[in-house]
Amino acid sequence: MKFQKVLIANRGEIAVRIIRACRELGISTVAVYSEADRNALHVRLADEAYCIGPTLSKDSYLNLTNIMSVATLTDTDAIHPGYGFLAENADFAEICESCNITFIGPSPDAISRMGDKSVAKQTMKDAGVPVIPGSDGLVEDMDEAIRLGREIGYPVIIKATAGGGGKGIRIADDEEMLIQQITTAQQEAQKAFGNAGVYLEKYLTGMKHVEIQILADKHGNVVHLGERDCSVQRRRQKLVEEAPCPILTPDIRKRMGDAAVRAAKAVNYSGAGTLEFLLGADGQFYFMEMNTRIQVEHPVTELITGVDIIKEMIHVAEGEPLSFTQDEVEIDGWAIECRINAEDSTRNFMPSAGQIQFYLPPGGFGVRVDSAAYPGYTISPHYDSMIAKLIVWGKTREEAVQRMKRALSEFTIEGIHSTIPFHLKLLEHKKFLAGDFDIKFLEEHDVDDPNS
Amino acid sequence: MKFQKVLIANRGEIAVRIIRACRELGISTVAVYSEADRNALHVRLADEAYCIGPTLSKDSYLNLTNIMSVATLTDTDAIHPGYGFLAENADFAEICESCNITFIGPSPDAISRMGDKSVAKQTMKDAGVPVIPGSDGLVEDMDEAIRLGREIGYPVIIKATAGGGGKGIRIADDEEMLIQQITTAQQEAQKAFGNAGVYLEKYLTGMKHVEIQILADKHGNVVHLGERDCSVQRRRQKLVEEAPCPILTPDIRKRMGDAAVRAAKAVNYSGAGTLEFLLGADGQFYFMEMNTRIQVEHPVTELITGVDIIKEMIHVAEGEPLSFTQDEVEIDGWAIECRINAEDSTRNFMPSAGQIQFYLPPGGFGVRVDSAAYPGYTISPHYDSMIAKLIVWGKTREEAVQRMKRALSEFTIEGIHSTIPFHLKLLEHKKFLAGDFDIKFLEEHDVDDPNS
Repeated sequence: MKFQKVLIANRGEIAVRIIRACRELGISTVAVYSEADRNALHVRLADEAYCIGPTLSKDSYLNLTNIMSVATLTDTDAIHPGYGFLAENADFAEICESCNITFIGPSPDAISRMGDKSVAKQTMKDAGVPVIPGSDGLVEDMDEAIRLGREIGYPVIIKATAGGGGKGIRIADDEEMLIQQITTAQQEAQKAFGNAGVYLEKYLTGMKHVEIQILADKHGNVVHLGERDCSVQRRRQKLVEEAPCPILTPDIRKRMGDAAVRAAKAVNYSGAGTLEFLLGADGQFYFMEMNTRIQVEHPVTELITGVDIIKEMIHVAEGEPLSFTQDEVEIDGWAIECRINAEDSTRNFMPSAGQIQFYLPPGGFGVRVDSAAYPGYTISPHYDSMIAKLIVWGKTREEAVQRMKRALSEFTIEGIHSTIPFHLKLLEHKKFLAGDFDIKFLEEHDVDDPNS
Repeated sequence: MKFQKVLIANRGEIAVRIIRACRELGISTVAVYSEADRNALHVRLADEAYCIGPTLSKDSYLNLTNIMSVATLTDTDAIHPGYGFLAENADFAEICESCNITFIGPSPDAISRMGDKSVAKQTMKDAGVPVIPGSDGLVEDMDEAIRLGREIGYPVIIKATAGGGGKGIRIADDEEMLIQQITTAQQEAQKAFGNAGVYLEKYLTGMKHVEIQILADKHGNVVHLGERDCSVQRRRQKLVEEAPCPILTPDIRKRMGDAAVRAAKAVNYSGAGTLEFLLGADGQFYFMEMNTRIQVEHPVTELITGVDIIKEMIHVAEGEPLSFTQDEVEIDGWAIECRINAEDSTRNFMPSAGQIQFYLPPGGFGVRVDSAAYPGYTISPHYDSMIAKLIVWGKTREEAVQRMKRALSEFTIEGIHSTIPFHLKLLEHKKFLAGDFDIKFLEEHDVDDPNS
């Protein structure tokens, strides 16, 4: 069934991204917005727009009832959840189904299985995907934790099974720390996620965050679109992503890709998804988690493959088979994304909400800007701080780096602080330029000193 | 020799385009500007900027002496002329050479030979490139004109040898009209170009304007980057360009490409150049003219080949060999460019200079904007009316068309009129959508009626 109308249950650049894909497909769009977002770009660009509640996300973008009311009243065929908010909420996917509205994403069952980290890990293990050495499922009690700690060796990491995105994580360097932290971790997990379950893993060092983008249809076809290197992180938040990964060999790419496809098939996946791995300098990789949604950094994959991932998500949700096979996926050139946030990177990334007085995004060859900003737009302190994603393509990594520096240097945002100065410095750092960085890069190096 | 500093002898979007390429290559840039362009974007983006005279082009952008003074005083290694102004002025190229400053373009000799249309035609004929049936060189007198008219058959076209870009052209449907027009044409040519020479050609109908982009280095290597279809013209001014050409077969592409490479070799060409052809529905093509400079529409070729043409121009001017061979040129997908001009397309394209009050270019996947506009920028009535070039890429022509419509619909320019409404209508026209249009398309069809 071709969709006539799609509701976008999100805001900001990803809502704009989805509206653009729908418009190119001739699908009309319904935007929803909080009271604070009355003048937002996604509201201006959509064919229809409805207020779904007050400023706070829990009252608006997380307000299932109001969103479903708008969907029903507007005769929406399908809902795209974007990322964040309700994107990985299995109940929401289930409610859509029961209202006869297509959820543009995987089944509620696939979301649930990948949302529970210990279930996900076991599922991956069963599918022959390498996982980080650790507990089989949840840690029952202190005795088991101590036994496991001795078995896998320190340091170990304690993770809340209901956590994600870097939340609910503790590291123990030895048995004493483990004993101290395990109960606290369980109590905190109960409080934060309503689920006290935690599991133990070997704490690996010198690892890159490398993830594989997959796309699956409802007919059992799964393809992967290669990897993204997202190792440049601050407090587990990605700041820069690129594709390909500078250290990946064709052999490792094939093995990671095959593992990702097996993983998706193991849960009857459909739609776009990402398998996140840790990759060691020795070429060994380990499953971390699967994101059952579109990711912020999807454009770098689009620029090197030519595949419009949002359009493919819509097509497979309509029941169409994937428009291409694995053999037809070709990787051409290099892409880098810098997340431009409303933060003062010279002052410990302090949030810098406020009105943008002058706004001129960069242009020219190989430059893509995904943003919901415009001259006069006010960045609200109530939502995430992203102003724009700046993505560049080049024939080589060197050209992409030079182009990113050029584009960052001409990107003009006046009235608020942004992370542009941070990115400009990062792109001068010798380790970044050499592709020699792991997930601890920003903890261990000072971007102010290019040789640190 | 690697250039340290390049002067850009131009303004507007092409000056910005060249500054961007230089910045990515680590070359510092010198902008020049007229008094009216004090606040222009190319002035803001360049490393240095100097005023070279009053508003009128003849006093500034065509002021050879002032430009050369700035070049000398700033220790410029090379000058990029862009398009228009001094780009095809052989004297300028010669003066650069004599000042020991590299002219980023072909030799003065190649410029001269291609600048004189009848010499160019003979050169092409000698190189085995198909030319339009007509006089061998200039028409000497009335008797010869009459004899030629009978030989090649009516209608015929009278062209000034020193003309170009659609100027200095008359059409005669029969002998009587020819007799009436030939003397007038010579007198007009003398007045307009300081050269009374005219030549006769068969006036071909139902032809597409298809051109081949070539790149040549100083070591005898010449490659072509495929074709562009620039048939959508109003009063011989291109409005929309695309690549590939919707009706071109691989066989014709190869024949046109080979002819273009032969042509370039015949004049020891170096740099970027374009061979313009008329292409009939029968696959026959005829040389029209060669543009010995970068063209406005070069981005469509960049988007389907991945080659940065401006960077290649700089490299070959530095004496480097081309960075790739003909076999390495791969065409991927489809690209379309719409020229967004400050004109009211609902009122016969009346110029609409003035201040841009609000400006927000489109973004997202596959969208490129080359522009010198910004919020608050004033479009001057003294120069060309271009606000921006909007270029899109898609996997297929259909995707590119849909993406262009989407991008045009979100492009926001307030305060002046633009040709966006014209482009949106053109993209709905059934003949445009079918690829079925020749250079008379806009004369013979009403874009307000998609079925006309």
